[in-house]
Order: sequence, then structure tokens, then C-alpha cells
Amino acid sequence: MSLVAPVTIHKISGETLTEAPDLLAVEEPLEIRLGFGSTTDRQQRAVAVTMRTPGHDEELAMGFLFSEGIIQKPSDIVSCRHCVQDSRKEGNVLRVELHPDVLVDWSRLERNTFASSSCGLCGKTTIDAVMALTPGPINADFSIEPAILHALPDRVRQIQRAFAYTGGIHAAALFDADGKLLLVREDIGRHNALDKLIGASFWQNWLPLSQFGIFLSGRIGIELVQKSWLAGVPMLAAVGAPSSLAVQMAKEAHITLAGFVRDNRFNLYSEPERVTIGQERLSSVR
Amino acid sequence: MSLVAPVTIHKISGETLTEAPDLLAVEEPLEIRLGFGSTTDRQQRAVAVTMRTPGHDEELAMGFLFSEGIIQKPSDIVSCRHCVQDSRKEGNVLRVELHPDVLVDWSRLERNTFASSSCGLCGKTTIDAVMALTPGPINADFSIEPAILHALPDRVRQIQRAFAYTGGIHAAALFDADGKLLLVREDIGRHNALDKLIGASFWQNWLPLSQFGIFLSGRIGIELVQKSWLAGVPMLAAVGAPSSLAVQMAKEAHITLAGFVRDNRFNLYSEPERVTIGQERLSSVR
Repeated sequence: MSLVAPVTIHKISGETLTEAPDLLAVEEPLEIRLGFGSTTDRQQRAVAVTMRTPGHDEELAMGFLFSEGIIQKPSDIVSCRHCVQDSRKEGNVLRVELHPDVLVDWSRLERNTFASSSCGLCGKTTIDAVMALTPGPINADFSIEPAILHALPDRVRQIQRAFAYTGGIHAAALFDADGKLLLVREDIGRHNALDKLIGASFWQNWLPLSQFGIFLSGRIGIELVQKSWLAGVPMLAAVGAPSSLAVQMAKEAHITLAGFVRDNRFNLYSEPERVTIGQERLSSVR
Repeated sequence: MSLVAPVTIHKISGETLTEAPDLLAVEEPLEIRLGFGSTTDRQQRAVAVTMRTPGHDEELAMGFLFSEGIIQKPSDIVSCRHCVQDSRKEGNVLRVELHPDVLVDWSRLERNTFASSSCGLCGKTTIDAVMALTPGPINADFSIEPAILHALPDRVRQIQRAFAYTGGIHAAALFDADGKLLLVREDIGRHNALDKLIGASFWQNWLPLSQFGIFLSGRIGIELVQKSWLAGVPMLAAVGAPSSLAVQMAKEAHITLAGFVRDNRFNLYSEPERVTIGQERLSSVR
């Protein structure tokens, strides 16, 4: 199992051609299966197939299941292991055995992919649905100085193993108010990188992550804010731009959302009070 | 309906703070519903919810349905319109009426999200599944000079309306061997931008796109190669890196895959013969 795969390519610069070895970010499907039901009536069901970079698959599955509201605590999981395929031990099918007491709300899981809303659909209903899963807005007392945020992209990049080789893989990192990096996870998919990070935190029993921020190497859509909200994170900082709905949800969640974190600058879209400039907290944008 | 939404933000540069107006890329959910069945027994079913940037929704739906193998030709569609919600005409639910003769293979549609493979899952089986949908490898006689590819990023950027304002939106563009841009579509999601482009081409009855290339503003995962293959495109050029599986599928499909198309250079991962340097075609990488 490797994060990168070797290939031979043609490099063209201007009109000049060279043949060269290169490395690609590995992408492979992962099927997540649930084992559930009472001890006398166990059942199995596939709940997701995602294209991911192999590695930390158990964390990816746990982060996904937590974000979908299927599991709440580490003891909800009895075991989590790869199914053996073709005599390879590390395969692309992961089976998660739930504790017999865990009741799965299948209707909610299906709604995410095959919606059946008769009253229509909009950003507001999407946010309302997520809100029903959370304990409410995040009121964590977390504050951070701009210099800490300015330094994040370089610090994460130094730790990212696969990006340096391929230029094509996303990172999610957990940092504290002093800028210390506690975890970094990589994946070809932004959502998977965050699922891995939250899954690892979940398994360490660190949730809610009220004294941490999450750094993302890409853009921020609503689903990334949703996952962060469920994990209880007060701050989300990303190299890229947020979407309109990501900002709307961050405001509802009371998450401090920082975008375009690069080149010694960033933009704050919500809850700016958590950023302190020389002892002073920024006042809220209204 | 707008591609961008206004907000007020805090900009931090070093330790300096300014309050400023800004524009965000709009993200809203779109539910795609199918009307299907015989004239005497019409039924309705929601098949997908995607977070997208509003605009060209009909094209997005057609591109999605074509990529999923549900529709093959424009006459498979009787009508395609937004459901009226809350007295707004342009909503987030789109209903596509299929011709009564179109038979929908629901099992295939569901397999994409909820897999039930008992024999395991890997990149190879994923490619095999797509191969079963296509008429085979692409043998289009299409050739292009490096200078045309070098110029693409700037030319597309000039046409992209929303990127200039938000810095957070993807583009997919259709170009010919002379570098002429025939279509550009934008969306917060890479897959949606490509679905819109292919949906528009589908509706114009341009498929298969054997005399064109597709340019993408981001990275290339396998699903983007899959959609391009089904649309019959001989060349895929992207600003970002391809994944391992994207390269593997491009080789099977005989699609010329160019990555890192920027700063007057690019890499070729498959079928380099379609790129000509001074009348000479590049020989294949083995």
C-alpha cells in the first residue's frame, strides 16, 4: 500500500520534450460495509463507496460514519477491518462492526444521496437538517493570533509526504492555539482527508475538538463546514475560497471561517472575535 | 439567480485589519428528479442531490444522466424544467421527463452509491464497469500543437466570469485543435462543471466529441476521465495533477491525458501521439 505510484511521462516545456519518471497520487475505491443488528440477528450492508488514497482507511470510515450521524462514540464500534480479497490483506473493502445497541437510521443515510423532499430544497433546509444533528452553535473559548495562521500553510506542507511528490493531494490538519500540529492526514479527496482527520480524533476520544482548529489545503464547501461543526471545531482555516453556503453555515454554527490563508494574509467570513491582534479581539462583521 | 453572492469580510494582511466587501461563489443543492414509465403509468423518482453553483441546471442534469448511462440521445428527453417552489420559478429541484420508451436500469444507478460487490472492489473492476458502458477505446484522429495547450489556461480564465470575482470556482471548457473555445461552463464542483459542459454538448447533438479536447481547471480523478470517455473526447487537459487511476483509465480509453497545463509546460500521461511538435507526432510512452 502506497500513497504514490510511479509512471513514465513526457514532459513538454515550450516546444522541448523530455521523457521522465514521475509519481502520481494513488486513487482506489473504498467500500465501507456495516455489520449491525442484535447478537442473534447480525446483518451486513454496504453504505458507501468513495474514491480515496489508500491509508488510514479505518479513520476514513469512522470519520464518515460519525459525520453521517451513525456512530457517536468509540464504543459504538466493535471492530473495523479490511475484508481479505484475492489473498491480499489490505484491500478496498472495510467492514465496520457496530455494537449491537447501535440503531442505524437508514432513512437519514439514504436521504443524503437520494433525496425525497416534496417541499423543495434549498441551502436553508440543508443547514436545518445538519442543525438537527448538532448540539447547537459552538461556543468554545478559543483565540488565535494572525501570525499562527500565516505560518500554517508552510508547516503543513512540510509534513505532507505525498504532496511533495505528486502535487495532487489534499491535506487536513489539526492545530492548537499555539500553532502546534497534532495530526495531518492526506487524501486525493478533500472530504476524505477531513474524514480521516475527524475519524482519528474520534478514535482518540478527542471530540468535541473545542480547543483546536482545522486547516484545509483546498476550498471550503458546505459539507466540510458540516463535518467540522459535528466535530465541535471552533475554527476552520483554508488555503482556498469558501462557498456562499459554507459561510452561511459557519455563521449558524459560530465557527470562525478563514479563507485564502496564504502569502501572509487571510480573510475572515464569520466569528472574527476568535482572532486577536495584540490582545484585542476583532469585532463581529454584521 | 447569480453565480456570486456579496458578503462583508475582515481582511487580515500581516497584522493589519481592513473591513471590505467581497463576493463568494454561490453553492446551492440541486435535486434531479426523473419522470419515467409508460404514458399510462407515469412515475417520479429523485435520482441525485448535488451541491452546485446555480445556472445551466438543465445541462448539469443532462450531463449527469448521460454519464450515468440513463440517457443516450436528446430525444430520450421530453422536457426538463425546474419545479416551482415558494413561488420562485427558478428553484433547486429539476424534473426531467424521459420518453416513455426509455428504460431505466435502476440497479446500475444504485450501484454507484451503494455498492454490493461480493467479489471485492478495485481500480480494475471500476474501469471494467465503465468499459461496459462505452463503445470501446477512442480512436479519433485528433492532433494538437503544444502552443495551443500552453495558451488554454489564460484563454479560459479570461472567459470565466465568476472565478475573477471569487477565486473559488472551477471551469470546464471545450476546445478544438486550433485552440478555439466552443463552450465554457463554471461550477463550484469540478464534476458539475464537466457535467454542464457534456450536457450542453449532448443537447447540441455534438456527441461523440471526437474532434475536440476538454480543458479542466483542477485536478483529474477517475470520474472526470470516465465522463470524458463516455462523451468520446480524445484529449483531456487540466491545470492540476491526475490520479493513478485517472491515468490507468485514460490509457484504457486511449485518451490523451495532459496534466499540470500551466506556465508554458505540461506533462503527458497517455497517448502522446496526438501532440505534434513541428509536424512530428510524439511516440507512445511504454
